[in-house]
Amino acid sequence: MIGELNHVAIAVPDLRKASLQYKDVFGADVSEPLALPEHGVTVVFVNLPNSKIELLHPLGEESSIKKFLDKNPAGGIHHLCFEVGDIMAASKKLLSKGHRILGSGKPRIGAHGKEVLFLHPKDNFGALIELEQK
Amino acid sequence: MIGELNHVAIAVPDLRKASLQYKDVFGADVSEPLALPEHGVTVVFVNLPNSKIELLHPLGEESSIKKFLDKNPAGGIHHLCFEVGDIMAASKKLLSKGHRILGSGKPRIGAHGKEVLFLHPKDNFGALIELEQK
Repeated sequence: MIGELNHVAIAVPDLRKASLQYKDVFGADVSEPLALPEHGVTVVFVNLPNSKIELLHPLGEESSIKKFLDKNPAGGIHHLCFEVGDIMAASKKLLSKGHRILGSGKPRIGAHGKEVLFLHPKDNFGALIELEQK
Repeated sequence: MIGELNHVAIAVPDLRKASLQYKDVFGADVSEPLALPEHGVTVVFVNLPNSKIELLHPLGEESSIKKFLDKNPAGGIHHLCFEVGDIMAASKKLLSKGHRILGSGKPRIGAHGKEVLFLHPKDNFGALIELEQK
């Protein structure tokens, strides 16, 4: 079911500082900040040869990243994203195994313009997992 | 400096259950458990097409994973590991930028038999980062 590790997201309290660190200290290829108001985040993509890091900063008062940073003011690893070949089949299988899908329980369009689902961390050993249609 | 995302480590309170979930629910290729007493962990590798997940469970009373699970009993994402081409040069650059290297400050042999360093989460927006010699 799961394919490639699409990205790891890190919530950061200072996006400019985090972006500069990945660029100048770690020598990675980083994107310009991209505002995604419908997801409540501004994101910087750190492009690695085999995967991506997404640096997330809250955008708007209802941002789930704002709530995460309220609890973790220094920032922290927020979630992992796995690609799946058929997100509806994956969703059906997970629900049949008793997994909880966050929000409406149906796929929505994610930061890359593809369908995504978020799985409950309590069903995944404390890790917030996003599934993205490949 | 940083190259591929070598792995993401998840600390889990029940290694057998976590391993079965990644194998049977997520349909991933998982290894047999591997005891690494010198690192205070038993590890299961989840082999993805482009990277790995490492499921970590404490081994021994001095395990840093035991302390992590004491604080996060359900488990959680523990660290990220980036490959570097020259770990001594990376270490020198990081120290010159004021970054703190955990432990003795010198590379030690990691779970894959290669030299590794761990960087202080407070210098990395709350994320524990391992660097591994490629």
